[in-house]
This record gives sequence, C-alpha cells and structure tokens, in this order.
Amino acid sequence: MHVDADLLRADFDTLAEIGATSDGGVNRPSLGESHLAARTWFLERAAAAGLETRVDAAGNHSAVLPARGSTLLLGSHLDSVPSGGRFDGALGVVAALHVLLALKKAAAELPVSLEAIDFTDEEGTLVGLLGSEALAGTLTPETLASPRGGREALLAGLERAGLEERGLAAARRDPRSLAGYLELHIEQGPVLERAGAQIGVVTSIVGARSFSLVFRGEAGHAGTTPMNLRRDAGLAAADFAVAAEELVVRDFAGCVATIGHVELEPGAYNVIPRTARVALEFRSAGALTLGELEASLLARARSAAARRGVELEIAPVGRWEPTPLDPAVCDAIERAAGALGLLSLRLHSGAGHDAQALASVTPAGMIFVPSVGGVSHDPRELTAWEDCVNGANVLLGAALELAGRRVH
Amino acid sequence: MHVDADLLRADFDTLAEIGATSDGGVNRPSLGESHLAARTWFLERAAAAGLETRVDAAGNHSAVLPARGSTLLLGSHLDSVPSGGRFDGALGVVAALHVLLALKKAAAELPVSLEAIDFTDEEGTLVGLLGSEALAGTLTPETLASPRGGREALLAGLERAGLEERGLAAARRDPRSLAGYLELHIEQGPVLERAGAQIGVVTSIVGARSFSLVFRGEAGHAGTTPMNLRRDAGLAAADFAVAAEELVVRDFAGCVATIGHVELEPGAYNVIPRTARVALEFRSAGALTLGELEASLLARARSAAARRGVELEIAPVGRWEPTPLDPAVCDAIERAAGALGLLSLRLHSGAGHDAQALASVTPAGMIFVPSVGGVSHDPRELTAWEDCVNGANVLLGAALELAGRRVH
Repeated sequence: MHVDADLLRADFDTLAEIGATSDGGVNRPSLGESHLAARTWFLERAAAAGLETRVDAAGNHSAVLPARGSTLLLGSHLDSVPSGGRFDGALGVVAALHVLLALKKAAAELPVSLEAIDFTDEEGTLVGLLGSEALAGTLTPETLASPRGGREALLAGLERAGLEERGLAAARRDPRSLAGYLELHIEQGPVLERAGAQIGVVTSIVGARSFSLVFRGEAGHAGTTPMNLRRDAGLAAADFAVAAEELVVRDFAGCVATIGHVELEPGAYNVIPRTARVALEFRSAGALTLGELEASLLARARSAAARRGVELEIAPVGRWEPTPLDPAVCDAIERAAGALGLLSLRLHSGAGHDAQALASVTPAGMIFVPSVGGVSHDPRELTAWEDCVNGANVLLGAALELAGRRVH
Repeated sequence: MHVDADLLRADFDTLAEIGATSDGGVNRPSLGESHLAARTWFLERAAAAGLETRVDAAGNHSAVLPARGSTLLLGSHLDSVPSGGRFDGALGVVAALHVLLALKKAAAELPVSLEAIDFTDEEGTLVGLLGSEALAGTLTPETLASPRGGREALLAGLERAGLEERGLAAARRDPRSLAGYLELHIEQGPVLERAGAQIGVVTSIVGARSFSLVFRGEAGHAGTTPMNLRRDAGLAAADFAVAAEELVVRDFAGCVATIGHVELEPGAYNVIPRTARVALEFRSAGALTLGELEASLLARARSAAARRGVELEIAPVGRWEPTPLDPAVCDAIERAAGALGLLSLRLHSGAGHDAQALASVTPAGMIFVPSVGGVSHDPRELTAWEDCVNGANVLLGAALELAGRRVH
C-alpha cells in the first residue's frame, strides 16, 4: 500500500499557494488570515474525500478515519514562521491526510481510529505548541499569561479563530483514548543530506527556552547628550547580543542561542533609545545543560544592563523540555523505512515539534526527510519531492504497524 | 516692550495638548495628524489675533505682521520626535507669535515685515530641515530620493498635508527678500543650567550626518543551524553598535554617534535574522572631524559585516554641515539679554536647527534657554517658565534691533 504521490503533490502545491510569498515561501503566522484559510482548505479537502472532520477547543483541525478503538494521531502544523518555507509543518499534515485516504481507498479495517491533525501555533508566533500542549493537557495558565508573541497578539488571534482562552484546556484528550502519535517533518538541518540518508528516525527532541528581555535606559537628544552621560538601552542590548554569542560558542558546544527580534523605542535617528525589547531563545539537548545555559545567559544580560546603567526586566515566555521519543515507535519507523528499501538514520532534532507535547501522554515518534542545504525558516526551504513521497509512505507503514500492534 | 507672559503661557499650554502623551510629553511626528492639528491651531490663533497667515509650497506655516520692507523671520517648528517633549520647537513658534502680537499691540511701525514661521519637519521623522531647506533653496532632489524616514512615509506625509513633492522647491525665497532669521529654542543640553546662565547666545551649530545601514545575512532555523554556520545580520549590527561606541569614545572626543533604530527581519524568536536595518547618526562641531568620523564609522560597519559573512548596504540619508551663526546677530541677542538684566553665555549647539539652513542665505542667530537636567527628546523635557518668558523677551528685543538696523 502506498499514498497517491500525484494527489499528494497536487494537494501540497494547492496548500502552498495559501499565504504564498513572491519569493516562493509562505507567510502563515498562527491564526492570521492566511493560516486560517489553510486550515479551512484542509477541512474542506478532507470532507470532500469523505473523511470525518473536527475542530477542538484549542482550534486543532482534524480529519478522521473512524474505528471503534482508541486513536492513532498523525500530525503536524499548517502555521509558518513569518516569511517561512512551504514544507515546514505543511508536509506532515498533507501526508497524514493522504495516509488516511490511502487506507480509506484500500477499505482497510483498522482496530484504531486514525486522525490527521493540524495543531494550532506550533511555531510560536503566539505561544508555541499551543494546540498540542492543550491536547496533552500540559498547557498552563502561566504560559497563556505571558505568551512570547504578547498578550495582545494572542487574544486577537484567538478571536479571529473564534476560540476562547478559558476554553482551550477542554481540548485535552484522555491519554487512554490515544494509541500513539506519529509525525512526518522536514529535518530543517543538514544531517540527513550529508549522510546520504533518505529517512531520519528521530530519537529525541531539543529542549528550548525563550525569554523576553526589556532593557530600560533613558531617552535623550542624540546631539546634545555626551557619550559618557548616556544610558542607551540599545547599546546594552547590543552588548548582550555579542556576549551571548561568545558565551555559547566558547562554553556551550552543541547548544544555540538566538536573538531573533529587537525593538528600540522611541526609535528615531536623533533620539537615544530609552527601551530595547529583545527576543531571546536558546536550546540544548540536555536538561542540565539547558539550565546552566539559562543561568549564564541571564547573568550576561544583567551585566550588560549594569554596565550601561540601565534596568533589566526578564520574563520567561516559553519552556520546552528535552524530550526522548518512544523507542518502540522508533523501531517501527525504522522497519517501515527498511521495508520500502530506504536508507534510514537515527538522529536528534535540534528543532522543537508538537511530538514534544504528545510524548508526555502517548508513545510518540517522528520521521524526518532531508532538507536541501539544511535550510529552513526561510523561503528557500526545500525537500526533494521524492523524499517527501518516501516520508509519506514511511508514515503509512509505521502507522499500519502501530495500529496493528494494538490488537495483537 | 514685553510679550504678554500670561497669554504666551496659555497658548503654550493649549498647544501642548495637541498630540499630548499620558506621560506629559507630545507625540507630533512630522505631517502626522497631531502635527497637522498643531499647525492648524497656530494659523487659526494668528488669524484670530488679526495677523496675516500664509502656508508655502513646503508646508511652512506663517503668521505675518506686514510692512513694506524685507522680511525678518522668527521661526522654529511644531513637529516633535516620537514621544518627545513639549518645549522642543513649540516654544520658539509660540514666542515668535507673541513677539508679533506685542508689536501689533504697540502699533510699532517697523521698516521690515515680521514673520513667525513654523518650519516643516525639523526633527527629521521624514527628511530633516525639510521646510527650512526648501525656503533657503538648498533642498535637493537627492535628499528627497532617500529620506531618512523612507520614501513611503515621506509620500504619505506630503499627501496628508496636501503637498506636492515636485512643488516643494517653490517655497524658496529670494535672499534679498530676507532681513534675517532669529530662533528661540530650548538648549537641550546641560551647559546653561550648569553655568547658571539665563540666556544662551548660539555661536555655531553642530554638523550631523545620518545613514541607513542594511546588513543582509541569511535567515535560518534557530534550533538546527549551528552557531558557526550562521550569517546572522542582527549579530553583525550588534557588533557594529558596540564598535561604533568604542570608536567615538576613544578617538573622537566631543563627537557623538547614535543608533536610534534597529529592525530585524523576519523578526521571530525561532528565526535567525536575515536582515538588520540600522539607523546611524553622528555629529561633530568640525567639518574635517565629521568627515573622519564618517570614514571610521563606515569602516567599522564594513568589518562587522565581513566578520559575520553578511552583505552591507550603506545609504546616506541626511547631511547637515557645521554652521557658524552671524556674529552681528549674536551681538544683538547679547545686547537684548543685557538690556533685560539677564545673564547670557555664548555656546555651541550640539543639536541641529532650522537656523542651519537659514544661515546660508541670511544673517541668522539663535537664542537658547536652559533645559532642566539637560533632558530633551523625552517627555520629561522641561524649561522653567520664567526662562521661557525671558527667552521670548530677548527674541523681541533682538528682533527690534535687527529690524531697526535695516533703516539706519
């Protein structure tokens, strides 16, 4: 049994037109108009193919091939980073849909329901893993109170999607109702390509934390305030950015730290910045190292602020623990790849994924396919079409094994 | 003869309500709604008091006390930096209006027309000295082609104000029609306060240049791209900010350099910045030093870009030469202060002013009044009311001497 590669491609291409940017990427930030349009397309496509559809209290959109047993989830996400690529998330959702279509076409009688699910806000334009954490029951009021995209953006997004903040938790599923979780995703890194492997079997997912840092100095006239009398919040942020990179490179091999956004206020050529708002994220495969990295980075931020005589506010806005994936699910994925004659490789994921949330409540696994040049979160993101089809067929094979295992 | 201090205050306070911010400042960026409202108020106030009014092709707004001779201009500006203070510019315009009202009330017969003028875009939200350079005939098409606020903002502002880009140059006045220029302004620095002086006689105005720098690196996934494979445009900008400050402090005593605005794209926690747009401004009292400072700063920007493997685009967006003011006008201001029993001090201006543009076509001078704590371009900007009234009376006295000199 295989997915229909031509239809998979047609659907993938149709989806990529929703929120398409002129440079070949997509711009579908979570719960924005183009993201909501993509979700609507997904449900209509599933319904037209005769699948059941559902939308839960966290806005997760699903196509369902129902059976009497528990539910095997096949998921990913349709949102993108701002000006992102076409493959990140979208491939996994479309492939999951086509796994269901292949099984429906074959009239396979399975002992579990199969559900292709598009999780809300994986990328974290608003919160990060919002939909999958709600489903797993791990979304906390604290997370919603200080979302990394800001409260205003979160509330506006929920309203656009017709969701209630207080109702989000109702999306939680009883773990006993779940048979497992599988996700196909592009690697977003160079490992598979360099190794010449076609399929990646993900053994663990990186831990990540993000913080909103606000440096508060003093505005002043850029012409009349001598350099030595300034309390320039922008310079404090610059000092910190440089120090943070030096720290990670020198003391935290294998870890990453990124400042992806900075906002200076008031923001004019002739005014010394009063405020610098800095978006900091850092990642490590190990929980212990992640904690040490956090302490060291925040110490650097504090000394940068102190050196410039500016205040510093530190607010945690995201925290995802390093997560091992289920060894038995890894084995199933590896066997499915082998059965198709594909070369697979076990690897760690430096990117966060919805599987991280699911792994806390059900056996979870992830299938990676190679990213050309390792490029992702960029319009140039690309995976060879043959690799996409391979990934979808491994997803199908692994789903069949996991479904079958429930009854034997 | 004196200005009416109570009416001056009433008008100043009324004006400060237009675009007022909750923290006691004003937000009247050039040709924005609140700025246009302030200009409308000015013309209506002047007309109600029986003065003639005019608006020229560059949007400069004037109240005129007409006579047969040439015109002595008394000017400043009603626009503010984003979230600026109430005094910067506004004091000079209201004081000029009240000089005209005092002379009108006294039925003084002057050999020159007196014109209280509010210049367009002194602060440079759009271009900088737009109105005064247009009047002086020094506004170039090149300046308009790369304005520091961007073309889009300039065109939108001109449209809101009902102005035509191609028509701006028609605001030029024949230098022979001008009898001189006087401007009252807050010091925006700490010199007068520290010296205990009530009036500043400005002998020269700083030269300033501004550049838009665009660092272009490569976006990438913040989790999967190792630190050593990144081309992070934001880090290049941070390197430059730190290096620029070090350079100025070490090698360019008395000069200043400021990065007032930075924009990272795409601007998300989990994406390495592809682009960093940096607003750079620097100033020096000496033309030679200003050129050396420019060369050194741009060299630092180039090495920061090279070190990070990112491209750099450099676009000049503003250039104001260091400007000496007219010695005879300085003497007149000093005498006017002395006649009122006020302690005056000659000083250099580290801030740019419309007088810089006017000085190229007519004898120009500036009167400073003390800024509490030297604070400016900030809502906390403050000048003691007594100092404001003193400044207005010195403006009146100097205007009378300059007007009288025309006939003797």
